[in-house]
Formats: sequence, structure tokens, C-alpha cells
Amino acid sequence: MELVERALAGDRRALGQLLRRVEDGTAEGREALRLLYPRSGRAHVVGVTGTPGSGKSTLVSQLALGLRQRQRTVAIVPVDPSSPLSGGALLGDRIRMQELAGDPGVFIKSMAAREALGGLAETTADVVAVLDAVGHDVIMIETVGVGQAEVDVVRTAHTTLVVLVPGLGDDIQAMKAGLLEVADLFVINKADREGADTLARQIRAMLALGAPMDRPPPILLTVATTGQGVEAVLAEIDAHWRYLVESSQLVRRAQEQARRRVLELARTALLARLSRQLGGSGLLEEQVAAVAARQLDPYTAAERLVEAVLPSP
Amino acid sequence: MELVERALAGDRRALGQLLRRVEDGTAEGREALRLLYPRSGRAHVVGVTGTPGSGKSTLVSQLALGLRQRQRTVAIVPVDPSSPLSGGALLGDRIRMQELAGDPGVFIKSMAAREALGGLAETTADVVAVLDAVGHDVIMIETVGVGQAEVDVVRTAHTTLVVLVPGLGDDIQAMKAGLLEVADLFVINKADREGADTLARQIRAMLALGAPMDRPPPILLTVATTGQGVEAVLAEIDAHWRYLVESSQLVRRAQEQARRRVLELARTALLARLSRQLGGSGLLEEQVAAVAARQLDPYTAAERLVEAVLPSP
Repeated sequence: MELVERALAGDRRALGQLLRRVEDGTAEGREALRLLYPRSGRAHVVGVTGTPGSGKSTLVSQLALGLRQRQRTVAIVPVDPSSPLSGGALLGDRIRMQELAGDPGVFIKSMAAREALGGLAETTADVVAVLDAVGHDVIMIETVGVGQAEVDVVRTAHTTLVVLVPGLGDDIQAMKAGLLEVADLFVINKADREGADTLARQIRAMLALGAPMDRPPPILLTVATTGQGVEAVLAEIDAHWRYLVESSQLVRRAQEQARRRVLELARTALLARLSRQLGGSGLLEEQVAAVAARQLDPYTAAERLVEAVLPSP
Repeated sequence: MELVERALAGDRRALGQLLRRVEDGTAEGREALRLLYPRSGRAHVVGVTGTPGSGKSTLVSQLALGLRQRQRTVAIVPVDPSSPLSGGALLGDRIRMQELAGDPGVFIKSMAAREALGGLAETTADVVAVLDAVGHDVIMIETVGVGQAEVDVVRTAHTTLVVLVPGLGDDIQAMKAGLLEVADLFVINKADREGADTLARQIRAMLALGAPMDRPPPILLTVATTGQGVEAVLAEIDAHWRYLVESSQLVRRAQEQARRRVLELARTALLARLSRQLGGSGLLEEQVAAVAARQLDPYTAAERLVEAVLPSP
């Protein structure tokens, strides 16, 4: 495939086109993924999530600059699961573009929620696999907000940073929001504000309440706008990678993710098969109408459709 | 089924047990749903979402009190999609419990995310169907946060309230977060704070930017702690219901929801069938290992599994 070869040769425009096809799930995108998947699995995938307004974008830009100084190539994938209908790019993007513009070692690919067959986490995983395969050393997935969709997205990362800011009541909210459990590393950004130490103490207290951890997440303080503390974060990201490798967790995670992914895709493929096989028979419309009219519960209706395609042995 | 009959007769403990079985997706729960589904479809389902800290719980309590004064029975379903691992109940619940405690016309059923087969939106829809079937006039689904999961949950409602508060930069965030599109009614709570009028203007401006609407959502101001403005919200909720009935949107929504629901359940049922049929063959493990080792892309692996169970015609 020409687009794949050009992307592998470092053609950024070709890479952009390829990613769009992968994102859209076109036949060409699938084929590209098939070709590129065996080349993936080398990159360190870092998820960055946290409360809105915590300065995630700025922090990610600073981390990217630091990685570039270490001669590592970087891809940034901002993900906005909360804009299902607008599908627009993220706010901070234009600013970041300027900072990192012109550096051939940095590639940025925004993702927005869409009514695709696969969920956003799945599509993001595909995009990450391609960015990985074409040779990026570090891929940073950056989310907005703190909902379940964000948690799903960051679960595909090797290392997850949770970014919080002092002085927002929302911090506790964020921790309640399941983020506590996914964090490999806490970053308290805007740490020049009052309350940074208090917040660090609160995080430690909440961690202490939970189950004992093999590796309690470090808590680091940064001021992303000035770059303060960013080097320490980079060091911890590297330390976490070494931990994953040495504890064999990297292998275990890859297996878990492969299982989840394959089953999810099988589910979707089966549904497509179902729609195709039922197409024109009118059975689907019949069942939907019965459920809408409350004559039938949705489970029984679904079971009838499945039986029609794949009779019980 | 005895539990169903007791729940229909108004036994609250039986209803609680029944809902737990429905939530857990047990065989008994499915059977209960099958029996009760034809009795559902009468209740007005109201979704309440918005930024954390906007006072949603207090507002919902006040709305419930107002509905009770109008002799209507009420169920409240607080949903917390952001606590996938803790699975705990919501913060405001204990306070609310006290306010409404002892009123047999109010039933509260909390929902937390779980690693269930169906998603939270699906399970919530089942729970709502049961609460509807046993005779609640109004069912209020209340979410925390503003992510995609929340949007999915409120999509199952007839009428969606988006609650915002003045003076948080987060408000704009919330609107960006796809909530603008799902709102049937905006409520600016804590409207005694500075900035309520500014916020109302901002919402109006954002609505004006979007596509023309058949029924632009009204924007109401409340102070839920004192009850101020709550009557007007109740009146608008009723007005929206009348609009849905008169514009035939109620029927159309029911059909759309039935379709989405049946297809989603068929997908899950097919996957269960797949797992069962592949069980012991080792094919699943083989494919997962190949994907984890990056020898194979997940799409090809999934396709092989599907072919094994349901060969292409």
C-alpha cells in the first residue's frame, strides 16, 4: 500500500491521510492496520488525564519539548470524548501547534467522539498502533474531562498521569471519579497556587485508604507554564516504563488489552453479520416495533434476532 | 414471580430486591423485566445532568417534593458512571434520604458503573422500566459529571435538564461537552450568585450559534436550597412532556430507543454465544496471544473468531 510506505518513509501528509482512514474504519484503513500492526509495540504510550482547566495541554507540550531534547520522537493524541456532536478539535491545540510547529519529530493527531462502530477508546488504540508502527518513541494520549470515556481511553496507555490543580473542589471529585485507581503518577500542576501541599496530602490520604499497591503512584508538583518540575515528571515516566518491563507487567497488560480488543471487535463483527443476514427480512423492524410498543421486552427481542441468525446448537 | 407481584403491590423491599436482580442481570431479573416491560411506558422520565457542584441533588430533591405536593409518585435514580471501581453511592444521598424519608411515594435507587455485560446506560434503562412498570409517575435520572457516559444515560430520558452554576469557568466546558445538544431545559442554579444573567446570556448565544431548533430550551433560574424557581422548573418539565406528546416525538423517541437497545443486546447475546461455542477450542486464546505478540492485528483475529462460529454464507 503506497500510503503505508510513504508514512513509513516519514511523509507526514501521508501519515495524516492514513490516520484519517484508520479513524474512519475504511477498508483501506483496515488494510493499513493489518500491515502496520506487526511493526507496532515499541512505543511508550502515556495517557494524560485530569480535571478540565488543570493545564494538561500545556503540560503535554512541555513534556513533548523535554522528550525532543532527549532526541525522542513524540506523537500527541488529544481526545475529546465529550464532544460527540460537534466533533471539533480541542481548544488548546492551536497554541500548542505553534510551540511545536516545524519540528518533524512531533506529530499531533486529534480525536473526537463519533458515531462510529467502534468506541472512541478502540479507534484511539488503532491510531496509536499506527503512530507506534511508523516509529514514534513516545505517544501521549491527552483527554479532556474525567468521565468513564476518559478512563476507557487512558486504559489503553502504559503509563497514566492524572493532572490536578490546587484549590478546586473538583479535585476530590476527580479522585472519586475512578481516576485514583488508574493513576500511575499524579501531577499537581499550577503548584505555585495556594493549596498544592494540601492537595498532595489529600491524595496520599486517599491512596492510603485503598488497597495496598505494588507501586504507589508518585505525586509530583509542576508549573507547566514555566516548565518547573517537568524534568522530574519525565524521569518518573521513564521510571514507570522500567518498572513495567522489569515486573513483566508490560507483557501482562498487552495480553489483557489484546483480549479485550479482540472480543470487542468480534462483538461488532457479529452484529454487522447479523444486520446483513437479517437485512430485508423485516424481522428487525418487527422486533423493534414490538419493543417500542411495549409488547415485548428488549432482551426477548434481541434473543429472537440472534436465534434467527445463529440457532442454538 | 412472587417478587414481581409483591413489588407491584407496593412492597418497597421487594422492589429493591427486584431492582438489584435486574441490575445484576440475573435470570430472575430478566424474567422480571419480561413480565414487567408491557406494563411500562407510562412514566415521564426526566434526566438531570450538569457540572459537578451545581447542586443537582438538591434540585432533584426539591423537584421531588414539588411533585409529591402534586400527588405524583416519584422515583430518583442517581447514576455515577465515574466510579467504576468503588461502586459506591453518591455523596448527597444521605442528606436527600432524610428529606424524603418516610414518604411512600418516593423511591430512590442508586446506580454505579460496574463491569457488567451491558453498559450503565443499558442497565439504567432496565431499572427505569421496572420503576415505571410498578407505577411511578415521574422518574428522575440524576448524573454526576459531564462526560460521554452521562450523555448516554440522559439520552434514555424524555426530558433532559442541564444544570449549571454561575461563576465557574466549567460552565462553558459543560456546554462544549455535548450537553448543549441534549438539553431540553437549562437550569441555572445558585442563581443568587453573581453572574447568573451573564451565564444565561452565554447559553442563549451558544444556542443561537447552533442549528435552528424546533423548540429552543428555556433557561430558568433557581436557588434550590431555598426552593426558589423550582415551581417554574416543574411547570416547564410538564410543558415539555406535552410538547413531546403533541409533536409525536414521544413515539419517535420510543422507536429510536427500542432500535438502539435491541441491537445493543443482540450484539451482547451474539458475543456470549461466540464465547460459548469457542469455549475449550483454544482458538480464542490462540488469537489473543497472536495479537498480544503483535503477529496479528485485532481486526483479523476477531474476523477469524467470527468465521469459526458463523461462517460467511
